[in-house]
Amino acid sequence: MRIDGTAYRTIWPDGRGSVAIIDQTRLPHDFAIVRLTSLEDAAHAIRAMLVRGAPLIGAAAAYGVALALRADASDRGLDHACAALLATRPTAVNLRWALERMRRRLAPLPESQRSEAAEAEAAAIADEDVEINRSIGLHGAALIHSAAERKAPGEPVNVLTHCNAGWLATVDWGTALAPVYAAFEQGVPLHVWVDETRPRNQGASLTAWELKHHGVPHTVIADNVGGHLMQHGKVDLCIVGTDRTTATGDVCNKIGTYLKALAAHDNGVPFYVGLPSPTIDWTIADGVRDIPIEERDGREVSELTGRTADGRIETVRVTPDGSPVANYAFDVTPARLVTGLITERGVCAASRDGLRDLFPERG
Amino acid sequence: MRIDGTAYRTIWPDGRGSVAIIDQTRLPHDFAIVRLTSLEDAAHAIRAMLVRGAPLIGAAAAYGVALALRADASDRGLDHACAALLATRPTAVNLRWALERMRRRLAPLPESQRSEAAEAEAAAIADEDVEINRSIGLHGAALIHSAAERKAPGEPVNVLTHCNAGWLATVDWGTALAPVYAAFEQGVPLHVWVDETRPRNQGASLTAWELKHHGVPHTVIADNVGGHLMQHGKVDLCIVGTDRTTATGDVCNKIGTYLKALAAHDNGVPFYVGLPSPTIDWTIADGVRDIPIEERDGREVSELTGRTADGRIETVRVTPDGSPVANYAFDVTPARLVTGLITERGVCAASRDGLRDLFPERG
Repeated sequence: MRIDGTAYRTIWPDGRGSVAIIDQTRLPHDFAIVRLTSLEDAAHAIRAMLVRGAPLIGAAAAYGVALALRADASDRGLDHACAALLATRPTAVNLRWALERMRRRLAPLPESQRSEAAEAEAAAIADEDVEINRSIGLHGAALIHSAAERKAPGEPVNVLTHCNAGWLATVDWGTALAPVYAAFEQGVPLHVWVDETRPRNQGASLTAWELKHHGVPHTVIADNVGGHLMQHGKVDLCIVGTDRTTATGDVCNKIGTYLKALAAHDNGVPFYVGLPSPTIDWTIADGVRDIPIEERDGREVSELTGRTADGRIETVRVTPDGSPVANYAFDVTPARLVTGLITERGVCAASRDGLRDLFPERG
Repeated sequence: MRIDGTAYRTIWPDGRGSVAIIDQTRLPHDFAIVRLTSLEDAAHAIRAMLVRGAPLIGAAAAYGVALALRADASDRGLDHACAALLATRPTAVNLRWALERMRRRLAPLPESQRSEAAEAEAAAIADEDVEINRSIGLHGAALIHSAAERKAPGEPVNVLTHCNAGWLATVDWGTALAPVYAAFEQGVPLHVWVDETRPRNQGASLTAWELKHHGVPHTVIADNVGGHLMQHGKVDLCIVGTDRTTATGDVCNKIGTYLKALAAHDNGVPFYVGLPSPTIDWTIADGVRDIPIEERDGREVSELTGRTADGRIETVRVTPDGSPVANYAFDVTPARLVTGLITERGVCAASRDGLRDLFPERG
């Protein structure tokens, strides 16, 4: 996607042996590129969320293995790299998927060939992510086209999204936002309601930023607002991402997604989930029961970082001293509330049968 | 209620001709008492939300009329005071109710008697609010007792609340929180999940502050979390307040209330609304269609004020420069999602019949 006209990906080898990323913790106020040169750099980038979003975490982990093997290409080095990277974020299924793929590719090779092969495999993972998301975009854009046909000519289609499942969450295009970008490129008039997505504000800081710099009309709202908008016909469809999808179509995504799905269901608004198939966990059938929900540091709720009027970055506390805080990072939206899953192979019902039809090899 | 052991109300005549309030915009970091000496002071306090919450706005408007009449007790002075105060907050039905009551009491009096009568009438409005809320507390506490009986002995009852409908929103006790305080005084073990309530953070800054200083166990959460908690059995009942309730039981409360009601309904969690009867608008039957929703300054969403680690109060921006923001202040929860209305006369179904049974004189 573009930043004020220039094409970027979120992660790329810089040709000097290191890997470049956009430091997403400094957005939206500061656009900074960071160079990763070691396993520790990569693990830190994932853990501290310089990179975030399931697909980008997978690609960053793959590049992390490549960086680790430059220093130590032994079996022990490979084991250590995979273990260190796996421990950074417990919920992201792409992380495990990418590390297993790297290990499968690299373990059989002699040590002398591992480093180069790791870089090639990481690049392949990144390229495949871009292709997957491009396909999600094309399949999802058809849904936005259909919504446009139900509106007066020139009336924008209003899409509501939660968190950031845009190109910043992937290598390029995004998952939930790939359909938005594809429809926008095709000239469909549209407008995106951007949930700010507390506590980490990925909507306000990342989704708004990437839409603004790509030129897509949008409006930032508090997470509390979506239900009201849907009651008043101001949302034509919702599209969100997912960190983990069960074999039955339950969707584990950023905390608060479930509330928007309830509101969509209550108001007859279609609720779609954009997902690359690597986020499907084929081993789990009941998301509410079986997906462990990451609890993060309460300071993400009680404190908030932003830019002062005179340009300083400050962190301020919003809760009283001594008031306890809880910080659940994800929730599970049951499949019954999901209108459809937008995958790289097409759109299907959020059900075991729907997924099986698109991915018969996993049935 | 108490602040670290000392009893307070939120508004009181200070015996020197002015009226004292707690500046709620400075909570939770600074406990400051402000003196209102004029109509302009009172109108500013309501408009800038130094005082907020439907019942406290009503009392503050009444005291505003009293302050105005000390300077000008003519018919024109009374008209001007009522018009200026009515314009401060369009949604609060208590504001209109209190001003109409003041006018009805004062207009027939000779000018010489109006000032003293206005102070007495404002004091009566304040005292009646306290009594109403005490009654809401006792009726609602019975619901918390019942919830406690369904739990293992000593297990706390988990109550979720949204925004601040505590004693800071009223003259004393609160509406949604009156049952919590009453049950707490009666020794029922309980714990309150406090929605931070974006964009103005009344939960994080006010509800958490008043619960903490009164000594009630509580935990602050992002507004996105309640659905997840209810899915996992961690909420026994919800109690929220309301700014305006229709004759049919629809509830217009802080934006985001509707989403919590949907989650409660989806998970079989009782959803109660605490309300003093002056917040009932007997003229409206369809809340979603007929209640105009206040849109406020987008900077309440894009900027946020808090305290830095070294004690400075700073305002920081969280959205990108140039990203539009929308700020709808309230939403409407349809009566079908409300388990019961807790009024000063008892608990009733959220329906025309339910309200008519408790308030037959309005039928």
